[in-house]
Amino acid sequence: MTAEEMITVATENGITTLTLNQPENRNSLSMSMLRALSERLETLEDDPDTRVVVLAASGRVFCAGHDLKEIREQFGDQDQQKDLFDQCSKVMQQVVNLPKPVIARVAGVATAAGCQLVASCDLAVAADTARFATPGVNIGLFCSTPMVALSRNVHRKHAMEMLLTGEMISALRAEQIGLVNKVVDEQVLDDMVYNMAGVIAGKSTHTLKIGKEAFYRQLELGLADAYDYTSQVMTDNLAAGDAQEGICAFLDKRTPEWKDS
Amino acid sequence: MTAEEMITVATENGITTLTLNQPENRNSLSMSMLRALSERLETLEDDPDTRVVVLAASGRVFCAGHDLKEIREQFGDQDQQKDLFDQCSKVMQQVVNLPKPVIARVAGVATAAGCQLVASCDLAVAADTARFATPGVNIGLFCSTPMVALSRNVHRKHAMEMLLTGEMISALRAEQIGLVNKVVDEQVLDDMVYNMAGVIAGKSTHTLKIGKEAFYRQLELGLADAYDYTSQVMTDNLAAGDAQEGICAFLDKRTPEWKDS
Amino acid sequence: MTAEEMITVATENGITTLTLNQPENRNSLSMSMLRALSERLETLEDDPDTRVVVLAASGRVFCAGHDLKEIREQFGDQDQQKDLFDQCSKVMQQVVNLPKPVIARVAGVATAAGCQLVASCDLAVAADTARFATPGVNIGLFCSTPMVALSRNVHRKHAMEMLLTGEMISALRAEQIGLVNKVVDEQVLDDMVYNMAGVIAGKSTHTLKIGKEAFYRQLELGLADAYDYTSQVMTDNLAAGDAQEGICAFLDKRTPEWKDS
Repeated sequence: MTAEEMITVATENGITTLTLNQPENRNSLSMSMLRALSERLETLEDDPDTRVVVLAASGRVFCAGHDLKEIREQFGDQDQQKDLFDQCSKVMQQVVNLPKPVIARVAGVATAAGCQLVASCDLAVAADTARFATPGVNIGLFCSTPMVALSRNVHRKHAMEMLLTGEMISALRAEQIGLVNKVVDEQVLDDMVYNMAGVIAGKSTHTLKIGKEAFYRQLELGLADAYDYTSQVMTDNLAAGDAQEGICAFLDKRTPEWKDS
Repeated sequence: MTAEEMITVATENGITTLTLNQPENRNSLSMSMLRALSERLETLEDDPDTRVVVLAASGRVFCAGHDLKEIREQFGDQDQQKDLFDQCSKVMQQVVNLPKPVIARVAGVATAAGCQLVASCDLAVAADTARFATPGVNIGLFCSTPMVALSRNVHRKHAMEMLLTGEMISALRAEQIGLVNKVVDEQVLDDMVYNMAGVIAGKSTHTLKIGKEAFYRQLELGLADAYDYTSQVMTDNLAAGDAQEGICAFLDKRTPEWKDS
Repeated sequence: MTAEEMITVATENGITTLTLNQPENRNSLSMSMLRALSERLETLEDDPDTRVVVLAASGRVFCAGHDLKEIREQFGDQDQQKDLFDQCSKVMQQVVNLPKPVIARVAGVATAAGCQLVASCDLAVAADTARFATPGVNIGLFCSTPMVALSRNVHRKHAMEMLLTGEMISALRAEQIGLVNKVVDEQVLDDMVYNMAGVIAGKSTHTLKIGKEAFYRQLELGLADAYDYTSQVMTDNLAAGDAQEGICAFLDKRTPEWKDS
C-alpha cells in the first residue's frame, strides 16, 4: 500500500480532508502510516489551496493507536522503538505546529495514540457513537506519550481516570471533559464538521497562521511574558494588509477581501 | 469626556463599583478608556474604603474591545499601536495584580478585549442574556492578547473554538466552560453580584491580599516550588493579627474583628 | 493515641485502605496525624502487597484540615508553624509521588487541607452527601497551600470562588468542576471505590509506577520537552517484561500475567 493509498487527500473550498485509510488495520499508526501522515502535513503547510484541515478516518475505527504487531516484531531493538515513538511525537507536534487549523472528525473508536491525535488537533467534533480511551495500561505499556496531549486538554483527574483504568469513555463524556468540542448524531457529523471548517476557511489565512502559532506559544509562558509576547504579535498582525482590510471592511460594513497568505 | 465621566466610581460597604460608562461607544477600550481604567485601579490599590471591586458597564454592551476607529487612524504608526496593546495588557495585569478581589458583573455583550477583561477578573457573574466572543479573526486581527486571559480560564479546545470561529457563545456556555462563575436572570444579577461581593468584603482585607497574590504566583511554579513558596506564605499569614484573631474567634465561637489592612 | 490507631491500615486483593481514624478530632491534620500519614505512605511505597491505595476516613468528617487548637498553641513560634506547613506540604507531595495510584474515598466534609488531600489524590470518588470547602479566608488564614492542589485540579475561576468566599460546595458541584471523578449514593460508595480500585489493581504494578511518575513530571514541561521525555519513557517501558507480556497476551487473546514490580 502506498502512502497515497494509506491517507487519502481531498481538497474543496479551501478545506483539505486527510482520511486515514487502513480500516482493515484499524487505521493503526504504524511507522509507514506515521510517515505518510507526516508527509501529508508537511505538504499542506504551504499549500495555497488549503486553509483548514479536517482529519478523518474510514471504517468503524478512527484510529487504534500504535500497531502492536509491528511493535512485537521489534522487541529488543530499542533504537527502532525509540524511532517509532519519536516519529509519533513528531507527527503530533506537526499537527500543533501546522500554521492551519486542524479539526478532528471522529466517528468510531479513538484509542491510545489515536486518542492523542484527536487531543492534538485544534478542534474536534465527534459522532455520538464515538468512543475514546487510553488503554495502554491494559497491555502493560502506559499511554505516556498520549497523556502529553490528553492532559493538556482535560482536567488532571479526568485524564488520570482514563489513563489508570484504561476504560472507554463515551462521546458525551469526552465533550463534558473538554476532549472534543461538539458531539452530534453521526448522520449530521459531516454537516457539523464542514460547517465549522467552512466558517474558519472564510477567515484570513495569514491571520489564522499568526493566531494559531501564538496560541500554543503563549500557553507555555508566564502571564507577564505571555502579554509581552502577544502584544508584539498584535502589533505585527496589525501591520499586515489583511488586518487593515478587515478593520476597514468592518467599519465600512462590507465583506473583507483577504490577500495575505 | 473626562476620565471621571468615562468610568464612574461608587463605594458602599467596602465594595467599590467601577462602571465603564461610554455606552454610545460600546464601552470600547480606547486609549483614553484604558488610561482611565488604569488610574482607577491604581487609586483603589491603597483605598482603605475598598475591600472588593465590582467591574460593571452601562448600556447593552459590557465592552466591545478595542476602538477600531482609533486603530484605523493609527494605521502605519506601529509605535502608537504597540503602545495601545501594551497599555491594554498593563490594565489586564493590573486587575490580576490588584491586591483586592475583582468581580466582573456582565450584562450584554463582552467581546475581544472586553471578553479578556472578564477573563482577567478573579470572579465573574453574568446575566443569562450576556454573550461572549473573541471575534478578532473576523476582521483579520486575531485576538492574541485576549487569548492570554481566555486560555488561562478554559480548556484549550474551548478557547480555540472561540478564537478560530469568532462566534458568539451564550452565558450558559460561558458558565459551562469556566469563563464565568454563575449565570442568573438579569433581574437578579445585582443581587447575586453584591451578595457575593458582600461575602468577600466581610473577610480580612490583609488575608485577601496575601491569598490573591499567592494564588496567581503559585500557578506559575512547578509543584515542589509552589509548595515551598506557599508554605512560607502560610507561615507569614499566621504571624499577622487577623489570622490569630480569626482562629481565636473561631475556637471561641464568636465573630472575628479584622484589624490588618 | 498511637500512629497505628490514628490511621488504620487494611490490605486486601492488592488494595490497601488507609483510614484517618480520629473522628472525635474531625480527622484534623495535626502534626501527629501528618507524621502518621507520612509514615504510612512511606511504608506502602515498597510494600509488595499494595498495588492501589484507598484513602478513607471514619466518622462524618472526612478531614477538617489543620488542627486549629494546635496552631493556636504555637502562636508566636514561627519555626514550629513553618515545620507544620512543611510537613503538610511534604505529605501532599508524598501522595503525588507515591508510585502507586491513590483514590480518595470521600464521605462527609473535606475542608482546607482536607480538601487539599482529596485534590492531591490521583482519583477521587465522593458520596452525594460529601461537601468541600477551602474556608481559611473565614478565619483570616488563606488556604494558600491547599490552593496549590486545588488550582491544579479545577479552572481558576472555580478555585477562586472557593478560596475567596470560603463557602461549601456540594459533591455534585465538585464533580462538575473536576475536583472529584464520580459522585454516587453513599450506600454504594464502597462498591464504586473498590470496583475502580480493583480495575486498577489488575494492571501491572511496574507499568502503573512508570505512568504515574511520568504523568506529573510531563505536566510541568513545555510540549516539546514533554514529548522528548515521554518518548523515552515509552521506550523504557517497552523494554520491561510486563509490556512485552501484555502485548503478546493481547495479540494472542489471552490474559496477561504481570511479573515486574
